[in-house]
Amino acid sequence: MTSTTPVLRGYLSDNAAGASPEILAAVSDASSGPAAPYGNDALSVEVAEQFSAVFETAVEVFPVSTGSAANALGLASLTPPWGSILAHTDAHIGSDEAGAPEFFTNGAKIVHLGGVHSKIDPDLLRAGVERKRGDVHSVQPSVVSITQATEAGSVYTLDELRELADIAHGAGLRVHMDGARFANALVALDTTPAEMTWRLGVDVLSFGATKNGAMTADAIVSFDPSLTEELAYRHKRGGQLTSKMRFQNAQLGAYLTDDVWLRNARHANAMAARMRDGLREILGVEVLGDTRANILFCRFPADLVTALREAGYGFYGNRWETDVVRLVTSFVHSAEDIDDFLAAGRRFTAHAL
Amino acid sequence: MTSTTPVLRGYLSDNAAGASPEILAAVSDASSGPAAPYGNDALSVEVAEQFSAVFETAVEVFPVSTGSAANALGLASLTPPWGSILAHTDAHIGSDEAGAPEFFTNGAKIVHLGGVHSKIDPDLLRAGVERKRGDVHSVQPSVVSITQATEAGSVYTLDELRELADIAHGAGLRVHMDGARFANALVALDTTPAEMTWRLGVDVLSFGATKNGAMTADAIVSFDPSLTEELAYRHKRGGQLTSKMRFQNAQLGAYLTDDVWLRNARHANAMAARMRDGLREILGVEVLGDTRANILFCRFPADLVTALREAGYGFYGNRWETDVVRLVTSFVHSAEDIDDFLAAGRRFTAHAL
Amino acid sequence: MTSTTPVLRGYLSDNAAGASPEILAAVSDASSGPAAPYGNDALSVEVAEQFSAVFETAVEVFPVSTGSAANALGLASLTPPWGSILAHTDAHIGSDEAGAPEFFTNGAKIVHLGGVHSKIDPDLLRAGVERKRGDVHSVQPSVVSITQATEAGSVYTLDELRELADIAHGAGLRVHMDGARFANALVALDTTPAEMTWRLGVDVLSFGATKNGAMTADAIVSFDPSLTEELAYRHKRGGQLTSKMRFQNAQLGAYLTDDVWLRNARHANAMAARMRDGLREILGVEVLGDTRANILFCRFPADLVTALREAGYGFYGNRWETDVVRLVTSFVHSAEDIDDFLAAGRRFTAHAL
Amino acid sequence: MTSTTPVLRGYLSDNAAGASPEILAAVSDASSGPAAPYGNDALSVEVAEQFSAVFETAVEVFPVSTGSAANALGLASLTPPWGSILAHTDAHIGSDEAGAPEFFTNGAKIVHLGGVHSKIDPDLLRAGVERKRGDVHSVQPSVVSITQATEAGSVYTLDELRELADIAHGAGLRVHMDGARFANALVALDTTPAEMTWRLGVDVLSFGATKNGAMTADAIVSFDPSLTEELAYRHKRGGQLTSKMRFQNAQLGAYLTDDVWLRNARHANAMAARMRDGLREILGVEVLGDTRANILFCRFPADLVTALREAGYGFYGNRWETDVVRLVTSFVHSAEDIDDFLAAGRRFTAHAL
Repeated sequence: MTSTTPVLRGYLSDNAAGASPEILAAVSDASSGPAAPYGNDALSVEVAEQFSAVFETAVEVFPVSTGSAANALGLASLTPPWGSILAHTDAHIGSDEAGAPEFFTNGAKIVHLGGVHSKIDPDLLRAGVERKRGDVHSVQPSVVSITQATEAGSVYTLDELRELADIAHGAGLRVHMDGARFANALVALDTTPAEMTWRLGVDVLSFGATKNGAMTADAIVSFDPSLTEELAYRHKRGGQLTSKMRFQNAQLGAYLTDDVWLRNARHANAMAARMRDGLREILGVEVLGDTRANILFCRFPADLVTALREAGYGFYGNRWETDVVRLVTSFVHSAEDIDDFLAAGRRFTAHAL
Repeated sequence: MTSTTPVLRGYLSDNAAGASPEILAAVSDASSGPAAPYGNDALSVEVAEQFSAVFETAVEVFPVSTGSAANALGLASLTPPWGSILAHTDAHIGSDEAGAPEFFTNGAKIVHLGGVHSKIDPDLLRAGVERKRGDVHSVQPSVVSITQATEAGSVYTLDELRELADIAHGAGLRVHMDGARFANALVALDTTPAEMTWRLGVDVLSFGATKNGAMTADAIVSFDPSLTEELAYRHKRGGQLTSKMRFQNAQLGAYLTDDVWLRNARHANAMAARMRDGLREILGVEVLGDTRANILFCRFPADLVTALREAGYGFYGNRWETDVVRLVTSFVHSAEDIDDFLAAGRRFTAHAL
Repeated sequence: MTSTTPVLRGYLSDNAAGASPEILAAVSDASSGPAAPYGNDALSVEVAEQFSAVFETAVEVFPVSTGSAANALGLASLTPPWGSILAHTDAHIGSDEAGAPEFFTNGAKIVHLGGVHSKIDPDLLRAGVERKRGDVHSVQPSVVSITQATEAGSVYTLDELRELADIAHGAGLRVHMDGARFANALVALDTTPAEMTWRLGVDVLSFGATKNGAMTADAIVSFDPSLTEELAYRHKRGGQLTSKMRFQNAQLGAYLTDDVWLRNARHANAMAARMRDGLREILGVEVLGDTRANILFCRFPADLVTALREAGYGFYGNRWETDVVRLVTSFVHSAEDIDDFLAAGRRFTAHAL
Repeated sequence: MTSTTPVLRGYLSDNAAGASPEILAAVSDASSGPAAPYGNDALSVEVAEQFSAVFETAVEVFPVSTGSAANALGLASLTPPWGSILAHTDAHIGSDEAGAPEFFTNGAKIVHLGGVHSKIDPDLLRAGVERKRGDVHSVQPSVVSITQATEAGSVYTLDELRELADIAHGAGLRVHMDGARFANALVALDTTPAEMTWRLGVDVLSFGATKNGAMTADAIVSFDPSLTEELAYRHKRGGQLTSKMRFQNAQLGAYLTDDVWLRNARHANAMAARMRDGLREILGVEVLGDTRANILFCRFPADLVTALREAGYGFYGNRWETDVVRLVTSFVHSAEDIDDFLAAGRRFTAHAL
């Protein structure tokens, strides 16, 4: 069936990949024997401890089935309904969640800030946190949401993150991190989970695992114990408290074990770098942005877009600007896959000449 | 570790079981190769068709991670925020979902109706659907929610269901079925999915699979095409639209294939019947209600409760009335498990004499 | 026009009355000259101080246009969305506000408790505040709402109020008072506003003025300074922050000045007592409940209901039980009005014999 | 007391004015005698008919206490929770209602569009109504909200309104008009209420009266009968259904009687024009925008702002851009007031030279 071809050779998204074998095995293993429901089973308790170990502090973990749920529930615990959420113009929470944050927060408003490479400009944040503060006629700046790695594949440095978090906390706001591609950022910076989150001021993290090897398991990780009770009730009434939670925790546990998550992310990043370097050599292709993770934005000649698609390569294009395409790599892409794509690109552009 | 013993020998809930081997295998199979996200993959399309075949009509299926999400989203599509949801006093939506229906409906009110064996009394429903109709000072009766099988293990007959649905539709209300144990009811009545739902007037069904063999996959099944668009947006902004939906659909597909769901349910029901028949022979034990599915309520002598628990048997008690216990069987219990429990019961009560 | 006759001779509700002349005069006076909007005018500042003086403590006052808004906003400040509001089965918030509390609280659940004369039974409250506490599957008891005077015309004694408030606070709940007929209760008990509210534990009061002489002005009175900011934002985004607030505060100020409110309430209560005493003398009439304020429930012979209505008297009947009628008096009824009604009652029942 | 001086000589807002004498008189008259509550009184019925006569079609009218409530409730009836509301960047609903629209719609998103003089650019609307249509990951364009007169004092022509409404309806969106200053726009265009609303496609109007002579009464006017029931329930559970509604309708009725509303608006507009013409003559003052109604934006020399304020004149400044001030006139300003302000302006600027 040809309809699946674009996916097979595809760079549409890292969510097109299946699951890591280690994760599939862990899910199978978790099934044997009965277990207490709702996270009260031995495995779930273990995985919770594993998270605390990985983050080098006591954290609370709430497994969820989507990153949208992680973001929306996390944000709801950090802003009152009359609050505003400061986020980059490109933030997934603002453009790709169909209003989930507004729904779960009961009507908080997302206020978009600019900044190059999809990173929030600190000066704009400085102005934003003060905007109409204390004015009863206006929503109140309550939380800044930072996507790490960003939707454009760029990665905030630790200093950049710290600056944003300091501005937020200095004005009484909370800090949320959308870590749909947390591992990709982590290995790009060669730092630790603790350094990239709570040590510099992140209060609640949307911990993405699905795009990097899990099946349907992400998690809310809270670094603020005062939010635990609220998050527990929001998680339940948000429809996310699963009875057989061991099957989510099996995924998360295996993800964190033996560096599966770091290896997967490193590989995906390396494939994006290989793609980037190869594309730079191709006439007429312009690599955009400042990719450090597994997402690459480029400007392609229009003919190239058409030719690649006809040849069965899948990717998003013409969504942002004309002839701008997005390529996303994941742990399943091989160096051969990348080289094959590059060869096709060279072939088609040579032909065009 | 002894703390898991109560579960091993447990009748706390059918959600204490693992997953059916067929479902685990299907999940593993689904992982190979890339696939389009958000339900646009080939497997998801196939499973959607499978649901339509099983229900003998074109249905819309929205996989969800919990029954709470299925109920809350389904109800939200059937009532305006100023509506009321008529349900039995024992309904799970009213007592065990921490306000999820109120949250997802934006504040609709659950109005509880009585009736024996946890089944809604038709006369009370007749009165309920007319209550303050058209009175702007009151919430408006908008949907009746019927749990099939009920929270008490009883099962509505088709005639009983039809009567309730007719009363509802006759007054302009919609009909929701909480089918957390849909398969258990289906095999108890020896009927078809179509006969038990849309043919008698069900508009939206919460299709439970998790308690009967799946891992973390239930579904909203809509029989009303006019609700499709609304459900799609609610599903997304409710945080339930998974990117790797194939992993949910793999579960649901395997569940419906080769009668896995019916076999599992038949077995669970048979184990409950075996338990019921055996308990009736034990002096001092009173079997309550009208169990047809896999839930059994009994009154135990207080000493028996204590003795069984000390021996490592798990079940809920003293939640409803003093000395009333609930026993839930599932597809993993064997006849030997049941007989072992009964033998213990006989031993402890004989000892008491 | 005869259609207004039932109202002219009516006991449908105390909201059928116009406004006290003092209040009308104050509104006219308030109109002269410009004033700062949104409560920043001199009159509004004065009236806020007047409230603090009347309550003998620093209170925060938020004028609202309806009692429903007062209740819903007040409750929203006292319960999280996953909370439950414990209230009497007859509470206005549960039956006559079309889900306003559920809407403003974002889905909190009203749990109804019984008790004679529409007063919450303290033992039921004791059980209620503990119900499923800490159970993540259930809404959490968060606030008790007490109507004073009650919907049945009875009045809690100070000891009764204190007992309920102590139970609530002892279990970590907050206390809300629905004072739609606050003044009627106050004069019935011959106590002070302070004694009947914060001194015994009320956190937020819905202060009713409209039914007792104002035009369209009630108020939220908060005794807890920690709620001020939240209430201010809820009040604004709830659509209740009026620009020309001086017109609401003119009403509230005049209401509290020179005992207008107390005189009006005393008069209304006296008229109800006169009605009650007279009705007790009429054959076949049974006075129900324990009326201390301006609402009276009675059982009338069916013929009497018909005859009085045909003669142009207005009141609600057959809403609660067959032949049960409700009579509400207000500051505009004269002793002659009452005597006229009683004479008609005597005439019609004598005729029936 | 000097603190009120800035207001007395003030141009802060048209909501600083009192009420028209005709409206005060009507309120007093309405108080005599009892009346059925909740809009069922004879006066309310009459005023409803008056609105239909004024708009030359059968309309539904819902009195509200604030323009925020009118906007938020009206919008909630025109968009699903997953919808987006397209409005100008300067729209009051987006910047000055503390999230009321988001709250009442259960989380719809306001999407801001640019355009000169605070009027929506039709081309941007054309793009906006198509944005991510049918994409389940995005909120769906559902309603366009047009402020007439705009927040900047400009006024859409009938052709401009028709173009926007046609774009909206052509794409399946609904049309809301924020008419906080509806009368000012009406007289500026010298047209009729029908021509400026339903005849060109407005579905729901926020009909402002408070800023132009009423006390605390605005109204939702619906031109679409299919919205009546929904609006009635939203109005009630939104806390806006007043018991003594005659006092709101007395205001609205008097407002519409004998051209009070048109006279007031004409006067306010004339005063703004006088102010504008006078300011143009003052050195260093730049009149901004395209004022046709009663709001004027200007750039003042910084010294002039200071001098005028010290002299007791009130107006907002430095909120938009540095040295940009806003002057708002109302029915209470006299030509002498304006001339006095202009004289002061001339004096202070001459002095500066």
